[in-house]
Amino acid sequence: MADCYTELEKAVVVLVENFYKYVSKHSLVKNKISKSSFRKMLQRELNHMLTDTGNRKAADKLIQNLDANHDGRICFDEYWTMIGGITSPMANLIRQQECQQESQQECQQESQQESQQESQQGSS
Amino acid sequence: MADCYTELEKAVVVLVENFYKYVSKHSLVKNKISKSSFRKMLQRELNHMLTDTGNRKAADKLIQNLDANHDGRICFDEYWTMIGGITSPMANLIRQQECQQESQQECQQESQQESQQESQQGSS
Repeated sequence: MADCYTELEKAVVVLVENFYKYVSKHSLVKNKISKSSFRKMLQRELNHMLTDTGNRKAADKLIQNLDANHDGRICFDEYWTMIGGITSPMANLIRQQECQQESQQECQQESQQESQQESQQGSS
Repeated sequence: MADCYTELEKAVVVLVENFYKYVSKHSLVKNKISKSSFRKMLQRELNHMLTDTGNRKAADKLIQNLDANHDGRICFDEYWTMIGGITSPMANLIRQQECQQESQQECQQESQQESQQESQQGSS
């Protein structure tokens, strides 16, 4: 990955690399993921997110649709659309979690600064 | 972002955060990006990737379609689909670049090890 890449570009590379990580090694099926591998990927790679956001049901439904006929394969565009389909309902929730984390970190920093100041005043 | 998140989950959070970074602050237009902001985002956030992969033309065409009527807004799903639309044609190229970088790093490590061994042999 080019060092000069932006955060978004690095994230895109991660999504691309993750696709190829699960692509079938079977030469006849170039650049496609089997449904069972896609299911394994969800369970391994999106497990926290699906659990945290209660979105497991949405993903399970997605997987069921996927598994309707066990011979289907998933190309990059379908993979991208499915990750988007899983992310979209939780985008707002992810946003709120990030905002909460940021404000918690700010509170922690403030309380650290206060205790430092108190200890400095105590020692002077 | 939860520390336990996988690389894929962290990448998804980056894509979500990037969307909200460019979402219009105008209360009437909740959770949507204006086309001009989307263009700015491409130029700022995907600039290296678009240049490296010669995909600038594809993105420019995408932006032109976007700019057809200057009052349109882009929701999260459209944003996700568009990033996918830009990424898809270069997914293979990104993959090759990553493989090249990995093998270059391996070569560098090997030659470092060799020169270390030579310097150790020289000093013994």
